[in-house]
Amino acid sequence: MEKQIRARDPRRVARAITWIENGDPRRYPLMESLFPHTGHAHLIGLTGAPGAGKSSLADALITHLRHAGLTVGVLAVDPTSPFTGGSLLGDRIRMNRHALDEGVFIRSMGTRGSLGGLARATKEAARVLDAAGYDVILVETVGVGQSEIDIMHMVDTVALILTPGAGDTVQVFKAGIMEIADLFIVNKADLPGKGKLIAQLEELIHIAMNGRDWTPSITPVVSTSGEGMESLWERLKQHRHYLFTSGLGMERRRAHLKREVQEIMRNQLQIALAQKIETPPFQADLDQVQEREIAPHRVAHKWLQQLLEYEGEKRIDG
Amino acid sequence: MEKQIRARDPRRVARAITWIENGDPRRYPLMESLFPHTGHAHLIGLTGAPGAGKSSLADALITHLRHAGLTVGVLAVDPTSPFTGGSLLGDRIRMNRHALDEGVFIRSMGTRGSLGGLARATKEAARVLDAAGYDVILVETVGVGQSEIDIMHMVDTVALILTPGAGDTVQVFKAGIMEIADLFIVNKADLPGKGKLIAQLEELIHIAMNGRDWTPSITPVVSTSGEGMESLWERLKQHRHYLFTSGLGMERRRAHLKREVQEIMRNQLQIALAQKIETPPFQADLDQVQEREIAPHRVAHKWLQQLLEYEGEKRIDG
Repeated sequence: MEKQIRARDPRRVARAITWIENGDPRRYPLMESLFPHTGHAHLIGLTGAPGAGKSSLADALITHLRHAGLTVGVLAVDPTSPFTGGSLLGDRIRMNRHALDEGVFIRSMGTRGSLGGLARATKEAARVLDAAGYDVILVETVGVGQSEIDIMHMVDTVALILTPGAGDTVQVFKAGIMEIADLFIVNKADLPGKGKLIAQLEELIHIAMNGRDWTPSITPVVSTSGEGMESLWERLKQHRHYLFTSGLGMERRRAHLKREVQEIMRNQLQIALAQKIETPPFQADLDQVQEREIAPHRVAHKWLQQLLEYEGEKRIDG
Repeated sequence: MEKQIRARDPRRVARAITWIENGDPRRYPLMESLFPHTGHAHLIGLTGAPGAGKSSLADALITHLRHAGLTVGVLAVDPTSPFTGGSLLGDRIRMNRHALDEGVFIRSMGTRGSLGGLARATKEAARVLDAAGYDVILVETVGVGQSEIDIMHMVDTVALILTPGAGDTVQVFKAGIMEIADLFIVNKADLPGKGKLIAQLEELIHIAMNGRDWTPSITPVVSTSGEGMESLWERLKQHRHYLFTSGLGMERRRAHLKREVQEIMRNQLQIALAQKIETPPFQADLDQVQEREIAPHRVAHKWLQQLLEYEGEKRIDG
């Protein structure tokens, strides 16, 4: 299957992502064979409050990139939705003009069956698209919460989308998105309030980005007409150039990989722990705690020992 | 020290809590000797939005309980504050009429130095007060966020405090506090809007509590005058009676203890994991991941094995 994916066969790409979502054991050897062929795509995160027009922006950006001769993979991630493979977000993009374009692959990712978390599944799905040779991978989220921030810990460039008059700058600031945004997009820039929003953003950038090397740009766009897409793409490329000339790109990717390895380990340990505490011997010890015969920390230490000894003997998998 | 604590020596009680907060190793043998003498106090959580008057309510309730001949321990928990032993919340209560009363012990708990988390430290502090023989232990929090919910996973009875006109019912409902509230207190019941708030609460209780055995009561009180305290205490006692006649009380305490053991184990594993990934051999493997030579899950599995084998050999402590 590795070869077909690397030849950008959309059915095999889709199947690989399904394996990832379902926790299918076949994903391990596959991901292992794909991994050496990854790291080439420009991973771009598109985030912003609901209603900011992320889907239409993604649509306009895809059109621009296709005209520039680039292939595009899109992961539309909805941490609030259990639906996958065809949730609203993805549908909205898919139903547009790119449905029959072989240079575009669009997939929705929901929470259903994402063993090990949606963020991890999205990360692996992006890796499949990367190995498949898509030049640009857009990772789009629905909102600005913690789940969205977690998902943004996998992309090279985080673009935050805002709209005039939505009054969401403060919300976005409080949610901690400002700190991770590499550039700002003012969508629906034909609406009144554009100037005020840009002024607010400049103020916030000044506060939040103080002392950093990279100052995020603010790009006004009108997704429905495609206005500003060329300028947006220039700025996205500029950021990538900055990343890989400054060393920050490598640093960021290393931090992401470290975080990923940690997440896998933590996840494994959680699973082992959850299984352990449902066993009758553990329950018997809990009875003794309830009878106030053993202190909780002593039981915890005893079972931690057993967990470690037992799990240390068998091969960890899954 | 166990004996002095059980004789309710306030200095020793305070010192034990300091040990807990500082992660002092002496807390282990102490907690172990105290643990068999716990489980007698009625643990009551007081939670609600800032401004709901939790401190003055605690103050009025303490007065009522003291008149009834009961001793009271108070833990004023502020997940947003690094200060301990004397933060604003505790001070506000302490500076009132109970400062010199030997039947009352008041302590503020902040995030500073709480190894293993504020919730766990608060749990152990409550256990010290329980072993010291305080009849009622009030655990008061500052807000209605996730940290507060975590802290409420240690008490027998969760009381949610609201005030007329504050418009916080929806916020409280969204935060998931409704689901864990055993009874509602309408504080400042002399303010306009009391009737409307009670009607809203009845509606919410109807929605959230559908199908449960216990229907939370709503008690209007005026903390400043002490009005309603007798009725409030009756209802708190009713809930305790319900808990320990229905079996729910034992079930709940078991769930709390299970959660506690799990938290200790998880915490230990996190510490071991965090240490492991800073070692040079781990960093060397991460280099290989970055060079796309090994897949992240393979490195994760390799180090998980090493973690488990290594930790399995030595005694887990701390």
